[in-house]
Amino acid sequence: MRFELNKEFVEELQLAIQERSDESIKSMVSELHPADVAEILGELEPDDAHYLFNLLPSELTADAISELEEDDREELLEDLSGQEIAHAVIDHMDSDDAADIISELPEEKQDEVLSNISDIEQAGDIVDLLNYDPDTAGGLMATELISVNENMTVRNCVEEIRKQAPDVGEFFYVYVIDDQEVLKGVLPLKNLLLANDNQKIKNIVEDIISVKTDDDCEEVANIMRKYDMVSMPVVDSIGRLKGRITIDDVVDVIKDEADEDYQIMSGITGDVDSSDSVLKLTKARIPWLLIGMGGGILSSIVVKGFDSDIALHPVMASFMPMIGAMGGNVAIQSSSIIVQGLANDTLGLDSAGKKIFKEMLGALLNGAIVATLAFIYNFFANDFALSVTVSMSLIAVVLFAAVVGTALPLAFNRMKIDPAVATGPFITTINDIMGMVIYFLIGCFCYSIF
Amino acid sequence: MRFELNKEFVEELQLAIQERSDESIKSMVSELHPADVAEILGELEPDDAHYLFNLLPSELTADAISELEEDDREELLEDLSGQEIAHAVIDHMDSDDAADIISELPEEKQDEVLSNISDIEQAGDIVDLLNYDPDTAGGLMATELISVNENMTVRNCVEEIRKQAPDVGEFFYVYVIDDQEVLKGVLPLKNLLLANDNQKIKNIVEDIISVKTDDDCEEVANIMRKYDMVSMPVVDSIGRLKGRITIDDVVDVIKDEADEDYQIMSGITGDVDSSDSVLKLTKARIPWLLIGMGGGILSSIVVKGFDSDIALHPVMASFMPMIGAMGGNVAIQSSSIIVQGLANDTLGLDSAGKKIFKEMLGALLNGAIVATLAFIYNFFANDFALSVTVSMSLIAVVLFAAVVGTALPLAFNRMKIDPAVATGPFITTINDIMGMVIYFLIGCFCYSIF
Repeated sequence: MRFELNKEFVEELQLAIQERSDESIKSMVSELHPADVAEILGELEPDDAHYLFNLLPSELTADAISELEEDDREELLEDLSGQEIAHAVIDHMDSDDAADIISELPEEKQDEVLSNISDIEQAGDIVDLLNYDPDTAGGLMATELISVNENMTVRNCVEEIRKQAPDVGEFFYVYVIDDQEVLKGVLPLKNLLLANDNQKIKNIVEDIISVKTDDDCEEVANIMRKYDMVSMPVVDSIGRLKGRITIDDVVDVIKDEADEDYQIMSGITGDVDSSDSVLKLTKARIPWLLIGMGGGILSSIVVKGFDSDIALHPVMASFMPMIGAMGGNVAIQSSSIIVQGLANDTLGLDSAGKKIFKEMLGALLNGAIVATLAFIYNFFANDFALSVTVSMSLIAVVLFAAVVGTALPLAFNRMKIDPAVATGPFITTINDIMGMVIYFLIGCFCYSIF
Repeated sequence: MRFELNKEFVEELQLAIQERSDESIKSMVSELHPADVAEILGELEPDDAHYLFNLLPSELTADAISELEEDDREELLEDLSGQEIAHAVIDHMDSDDAADIISELPEEKQDEVLSNISDIEQAGDIVDLLNYDPDTAGGLMATELISVNENMTVRNCVEEIRKQAPDVGEFFYVYVIDDQEVLKGVLPLKNLLLANDNQKIKNIVEDIISVKTDDDCEEVANIMRKYDMVSMPVVDSIGRLKGRITIDDVVDVIKDEADEDYQIMSGITGDVDSSDSVLKLTKARIPWLLIGMGGGILSSIVVKGFDSDIALHPVMASFMPMIGAMGGNVAIQSSSIIVQGLANDTLGLDSAGKKIFKEMLGALLNGAIVATLAFIYNFFANDFALSVTVSMSLIAVVLFAAVVGTALPLAFNRMKIDPAVATGPFITTINDIMGMVIYFLIGCFCYSIF
């Protein structure tokens, strides 16, 4: 019973909204999954989206809103008062989603929303969550979870679950704590279901890996992925259970990190997709294009310095694109391997020096292959001085690119700058400039002796 | 109690293995998580890894082996007979991992392993799984799951779970089927735990989204991510329950797809990481470098055609790098947005023509900005003809790049070629060549009239 959004559905719904035929709108949308409703809200014009939002039950729209793209959500919430947001949205949400959405609101509105939340305990939880850095485990966790004392019996435990369950959405584990709320372990529901009623929780509890509230999100994602975990308890610095992170949020973190690295390599800043406005897309791209242009101007100054040589041997100009492309390609290859290794924590235990040496070895091998092929081509197609120039330059440029491509992301990482910045236009620009310097120096030398 | 692998640990373990002090090896490793043991096996030399493998209990090594990188695993299993692999590895595994590992073995060995599996029913399941395309839901699913008949009561159901549980690792849902084994829905363990003993399963079963055995893995991943699912039932063409896909496998699919796209964009073929050998790394890179070189040769032929113009106006050569870089950057920006949109299924409902038009609009805007800046620089730094040439070329190149960058991945996707191929060296090469053609044609024209 999967729903597939298509143009016909959107048009039919738009018509129903224009005609204000509430019953047919409801029959089209109200049985759908919140994620599908979010998709629909994203496709509608703001006014239509508002109408739909007001018509549907709050439980459904609240969940849909937390699934919505950030800019669509902002648009939708803009016209609502803090009180309306509190009652129609936040009251029906888990604490982690609620905190995320409140943190996106303008400052004054945040307080208005917080003071209007019906459940004072939930409001307290949200205020606590808002204090965590969004890129940490604390910023990612929800406070809704089932916890039981280790001294309970299985029977008490099931009663306790019955009490706590209405406040918690889906759960697969019960967290076991001691009298000081320190996390002692976990009970998969399966074990509980198969256990004897009179068994002590203490005796059937299982060990569990936990993270601290200030651990980095990306680290949490790597741990959950490595150990195939579905939910991860979060504790404070003295081990007290504070919340849990569920795999669906971690999947989003993994996907977002990957998308971000992909966009940075392709020279795009900020989270954009093809449905964004032309202006937003342009804004996300222009910074890298300006870097490329700055690099182009520097390259032009370098090349202009060899004006008279080019006038004498204009054929030298013809291999400038190859030298530039080769340096750029090798640099991106090297840096992307390092960036990926850093992100996935798979770089292994080798030192930076050893890694650079290994890259140089590989670059030398690749450089030798392309230099040989280029030499064979040029030997027949062009003069001898150019043949030597191009092949020597290729090896030099490729070596330089491998060293920069390996060293730069490692250095950035150590300086706490996102190493992904060292891929894409940034590194190709450096290599373009240095490539021209290397190429023309070698060229002038070769033409002077051959 | 998280384990962090470091150099000291590896060295200490290597020493213990060399001294054959089995007790200290066991005390170091046998309490660790299989994922940690896999990491350790990956760091050891083949002989040492073998020794450790033989020493540890099969349950632990079997799980570790399924977590190992493919090349490390091949090395480890190479020296074992089919019988040994069956008894020490496959017998302790879930059907999906078992099928994956058997499919990696050489043909003759596969049959030897299959005929030596202790549990004939498991062997049958594995043979069935091996028939599915590895990139489909059937290739990803495991057959281990808990299923109950819809006509049971909660009490019978718990008894049934007790019977089936020993064969299934972790589970959070019970799948509900009818007498024909057709999937009717799902029961979260939580509901079962809180239900009344005499309730009929039929009356408390919940709806569930399922996929078919031949659905594409990437689609399965997108669905599970969209609907925040932890496990997904897989049915055959007439709806009979065949297996389940768990989120940990989907997380790996998402991560692998993202890594693959990242590597393709950076000009690397095949799944490599920085710990691979220099030779393997070289092999993964050389194809794209050769494409780049081929493109460089074509560019050189284009530029050589303008030899006499360059000899007359050598300053024209100085802006070749900028033109090349700009075209490449814009093309990669455009194509990566499309590739990402295709992968994430977020391209929206617009037609290809509308997307290309939108990209052109954005490119025109970006092109106008860089062209203006370049004109201002050149007006003061270089002659007027060059100023006009560079700025006009920038706009033309950027437009061309936007169109190619948008159209190519869309066309590839329609032709069932991985659209990611249209990013990276491939697209920059096309733009390098066309960029030179555009630049010098405009240049010759401008120098002839100004």
